[in-house]
Amino acid sequence: SALGTAPPDPAYTADLVATVAQLDQMSTTVPVDAPWQAANAQAWDNESLESWLAANTVNPDFRKTLVPVATRPIFGAEPGELSLLFTLFYIAASGNEKHPGTFERNFDTRNGAQMSRFVGGTQLIAIKMAKQLGRRVLLGTPVRRIEQDKGGVRVISDHHTVHAKQAIVAIPPTLCGRIYYEPKMPVARDQLTQRLPQGTLGKVAALYDRPFWRDDGLTGSVINTHGYVSFTVDDSPPGGKPGVIFGFVGGDRAREFFRKPLKKRRKLIIAEFVDAFGAKAAHPKGYFETNWSAEEWTRGCPVAIPGPGLLLAYGDSIRKPVKRIHWAGTETSTYWNGYMDGAVRSGQRAAAEVLDEL
Amino acid sequence: SALGTAPPDPAYTADLVATVAQLDQMSTTVPVDAPWQAANAQAWDNESLESWLAANTVNPDFRKTLVPVATRPIFGAEPGELSLLFTLFYIAASGNEKHPGTFERNFDTRNGAQMSRFVGGTQLIAIKMAKQLGRRVLLGTPVRRIEQDKGGVRVISDHHTVHAKQAIVAIPPTLCGRIYYEPKMPVARDQLTQRLPQGTLGKVAALYDRPFWRDDGLTGSVINTHGYVSFTVDDSPPGGKPGVIFGFVGGDRAREFFRKPLKKRRKLIIAEFVDAFGAKAAHPKGYFETNWSAEEWTRGCPVAIPGPGLLLAYGDSIRKPVKRIHWAGTETSTYWNGYMDGAVRSGQRAAAEVLDEL
Repeated sequence: SALGTAPPDPAYTADLVATVAQLDQMSTTVPVDAPWQAANAQAWDNESLESWLAANTVNPDFRKTLVPVATRPIFGAEPGELSLLFTLFYIAASGNEKHPGTFERNFDTRNGAQMSRFVGGTQLIAIKMAKQLGRRVLLGTPVRRIEQDKGGVRVISDHHTVHAKQAIVAIPPTLCGRIYYEPKMPVARDQLTQRLPQGTLGKVAALYDRPFWRDDGLTGSVINTHGYVSFTVDDSPPGGKPGVIFGFVGGDRAREFFRKPLKKRRKLIIAEFVDAFGAKAAHPKGYFETNWSAEEWTRGCPVAIPGPGLLLAYGDSIRKPVKRIHWAGTETSTYWNGYMDGAVRSGQRAAAEVLDEL
Repeated sequence: SALGTAPPDPAYTADLVATVAQLDQMSTTVPVDAPWQAANAQAWDNESLESWLAANTVNPDFRKTLVPVATRPIFGAEPGELSLLFTLFYIAASGNEKHPGTFERNFDTRNGAQMSRFVGGTQLIAIKMAKQLGRRVLLGTPVRRIEQDKGGVRVISDHHTVHAKQAIVAIPPTLCGRIYYEPKMPVARDQLTQRLPQGTLGKVAALYDRPFWRDDGLTGSVINTHGYVSFTVDDSPPGGKPGVIFGFVGGDRAREFFRKPLKKRRKLIIAEFVDAFGAKAAHPKGYFETNWSAEEWTRGCPVAIPGPGLLLAYGDSIRKPVKRIHWAGTETSTYWNGYMDGAVRSGQRAAAEVLDEL
């Protein structure tokens, strides 16, 4: 991790190329709308990504060092927490109706899911939509209970009760499980939400007067196999004022990192940025971080992560409506599950379901 | 599964003996108070019981047929859902301070955890304790919210609010996660409850005038590798009026079984009992069943089942108090986790914690 652009450790290269090729190939047999129906679903869902790697890679350092650097930012998880079948589904889902998903489409900044940012930040989307919707958006009044009967649905929040014909619940499955339903959820749906946790992921960002790393011909992207931050990008706005380095801290690294006091965390991150970008990184004019697992209405990011056995046992309950209650959110999407694209797709699908009922 | 007492398929025997011996041996290195600190915790928690068996047994039929017959009643789960480390912990926990746990102590009816029943049913314990406690037991008023500050704790249920110095929450972890806390739970505790589902288990029972199987020298115990019911016992009260055959339906078999209509379920179970005990089993005078996953205040049985990765990531939050809130219930126990013995132990431990604070 000296200053500059070190190529991947050559000891990893053969495993890396073979593993990505093999996972991509296996993923082509996983239907994005029903991964549990893949021909090998039984075998693939009954083991973790980690145990599959242990049996199918050569260099243990590849598995222990390089793979977690990918799974921490992608899933907020270690390879041992992930169902192999879910991993393959996630690759298959990194495509669309015309193009098969691949690992590269998921992970790459060029022509991959990491390519685009929004000027002004992605929060602008929510802010602008809320403006259009006006008074129909109610904030600060979390839903605690949803009742339904033959006549309709009653959504009860701290300060309001809304009567409607149909309801769409668009929050992560684990948070769906914290709402009380009357009548109660069917067994399969409840067991699903018990088993579908959010990943463990945080982000950190350091602000500088300008993106000085560009002077040295550096992109600002680092893949760090040994740091808290697995992956960084240049997150400066157009014009480069300020210069921003942004990074993901996930899985075991996040668990260790966020237990430390803020002052210590700041110091550790800046030390990693100095190691990558030189002494100029030592004195940022600002340091920001978000620990999504601590956010009450998210409780983890970037997505819900099925462990072994879940998709086989209860996967088909992920978006099956329960009478008048419909499920949206990126976790219910086929393509681009875990991404904003998937969230939008899920909203369109749920809206179509409701329109069919009206 | 013809009438009578078939010995285990000889093709399984070598694998069975070797697997139980190996798991028992491995379990001796797992500390029951901190399984995540076992020397091999990293490797063992990163794979499922299923993937370990695939690499360490000879006859695939043993893994696919006989092992699930054990994991379904013991855990309410398939071998692919269980962390290997958790499985080893559960064996280690099937002992006490003086005797190491073994698989046999967990599973056996003679000198094992399945040996004792209570005359009148185990519910009598709760009923008699409630009588002693009198008006201090509040029913029909589920807790929705727990608030705490420097002064104490406020437990808010549908019809009552209780003020206290300390609180003990003695429900399964997944249900703990459905209570709202103010201030909110620490990240590790919340992530734990997201990841700790209850197993999938039900019970069935058929009542006859008398335990007629005893006439044929049968115990009433069946291990059925191909039925919905994995395991039965003679559950007749002393005196044998009525005769009762009781059985467990778990894991995938439970998922399939409880989707069928009641009439069909009854028919399927009676057919299995006829197959095991002969034509006299064909006309029970009663048929009962419980699907614990459908019970709102249990939502699964017999215990919470950690999948791969959980114990390493968040295991140490299972009984760590959150200021004035303490955690009890069998899932928080060291020895006899998942059993009534463990539940009692956890209550004593939590009560001692609270007394220390008062």
